[in-house]
Amino acid sequence: MRKLSITVFIFIAIISVTFIMTYSSADTGSTSYAEDRALIEDLQARYMFALDFGDLDTYVKTFTEDGILDIIGFKWQGRENIKRELGAMSANMAKEKPATGDEKKLYPSTGRHNITNIVIKINGNKAVGRAYWFHMGNDNPERKATLDSYGYYEDDMEKVNGEWLFSKRIIYNEQMAEWIGSKKNPSW
Amino acid sequence: MRKLSITVFIFIAIISVTFIMTYSSADTGSTSYAEDRALIEDLQARYMFALDFGDLDTYVKTFTEDGILDIIGFKWQGRENIKRELGAMSANMAKEKPATGDEKKLYPSTGRHNITNIVIKINGNKAVGRAYWFHMGNDNPERKATLDSYGYYEDDMEKVNGEWLFSKRIIYNEQMAEWIGSKKNPSW
Amino acid sequence: MRKLSITVFIFIAIISVTFIMTYSSADTGSTSYAEDRALIEDLQARYMFALDFGDLDTYVKTFTEDGILDIIGFKWQGRENIKRELGAMSANMAKEKPATGDEKKLYPSTGRHNITNIVIKINGNKAVGRAYWFHMGNDNPERKATLDSYGYYEDDMEKVNGEWLFSKRIIYNEQMAEWIGSKKNPSW
Repeated sequence: MRKLSITVFIFIAIISVTFIMTYSSADTGSTSYAEDRALIEDLQARYMFALDFGDLDTYVKTFTEDGILDIIGFKWQGRENIKRELGAMSANMAKEKPATGDEKKLYPSTGRHNITNIVIKINGNKAVGRAYWFHMGNDNPERKATLDSYGYYEDDMEKVNGEWLFSKRIIYNEQMAEWIGSKKNPSW
Repeated sequence: MRKLSITVFIFIAIISVTFIMTYSSADTGSTSYAEDRALIEDLQARYMFALDFGDLDTYVKTFTEDGILDIIGFKWQGRENIKRELGAMSANMAKEKPATGDEKKLYPSTGRHNITNIVIKINGNKAVGRAYWFHMGNDNPERKATLDSYGYYEDDMEKVNGEWLFSKRIIYNEQMAEWIGSKKNPSW
Repeated sequence: MRKLSITVFIFIAIISVTFIMTYSSADTGSTSYAEDRALIEDLQARYMFALDFGDLDTYVKTFTEDGILDIIGFKWQGRENIKRELGAMSANMAKEKPATGDEKKLYPSTGRHNITNIVIKINGNKAVGRAYWFHMGNDNPERKATLDSYGYYEDDMEKVNGEWLFSKRIIYNEQMAEWIGSKKNPSW
């Protein structure tokens, strides 16, 4: 009887430990605000690298398959559409601005988008975000670092197969009268 | 005897599981550095949106009821005082700078505070923070994006009913001789 | 018999709870992406404060003992070497740029590095990072806030005795032709 009891004790203890370990891990990994926010911050940063370094394949993978990119003046849905239209727009912008004689001597200019003030609200596998962005570049004869524009994002995000992605990103740009966004606080 | 034993086994196992689940959740939710830091980063970002979009009600709710805003030249304590004094200061600044003829044709200018380099040390329900801030705006005839000032924050924060709030924010501004802050590293 | 059984039940329950608490804590603290990322973000921010406020002792402690700082034009290994060489470089820069008559009347100028777009991939006690940086300062007669350079980081990090440190930081600077870094996306 006593031997049996101890066997049963140990059995129940092992079951309990296994169950609780599984439960604890799942809780830590998927339901905490910190965990979701950390993954979304990483997404927001990878988006910027892909955009600024012209890596359109990586860029569109930060969106869901049918995600929407809305830059007010233009609105595209779906990874394929975003890639095609953004690619065409970039090519046009490059054509319209041929390098001057002076600039030809220099290394190519770069442009860099930065994100700050990231506000994120999470509800299960959905999230909404607000954040500021600003852009700096050196597309001038001296390759001098220059701030040139800023605005803010309104984001909808979804967790798809454990990966956070943009289902919709709206980009307000305060250097263009038509794209300047809300006068009221878009955050909460 | 054996039946009784098994009943007791199960009872103790249930008690243990319940106790540990509660403990694990609480641990994940409230005592991890990541969870507290994530909530504080969100606070820091919501503060900026509220400030720049003139949402004073939301702004003062980022402080504790008797929180202190110390911008060196001015120091106010309590949500009501901060709201009244900051509101008056904003109104005065708007009056002192009437739009020129050219500017009247344009959309309203905006100003945007950004936070970076967030250092946070947490001790239970209290936290201390250091961070950089800078401000950009387009209050000029061309609505050109311009960097105009920077400085750093020294923050005390408290977790009140599960929500992190500023109990004291000191703002150093390196564009004013009297407000420039420490020559020594204010961080650690 | 019954009293013995209950004693044994309680004993096993206590052992289980202790074991699981330890396990849960360890899990929360060291294996979640959020926890590691939070600690690394804090490291990245403390690095900036130490650098800009000339706190070289704190600065070199953000590196592992044999950590590497590679700013393309210069590459130093080990805390002692980094401290000595960076200190000498700063002293030289200060000498080369004596204050003009006008500047002497002013408070000392400052320079501030900012980090944004932090991408971090973690694998146990190792991590790789990418991030943007930019620098602003007011080293001009009017102490006017000015953006002056930007670039990006490629970081290797290690967790040593529970503390994340840089084992290697490469700094690309897009204001110098030789230091501008990759045309391809350095992130993923």
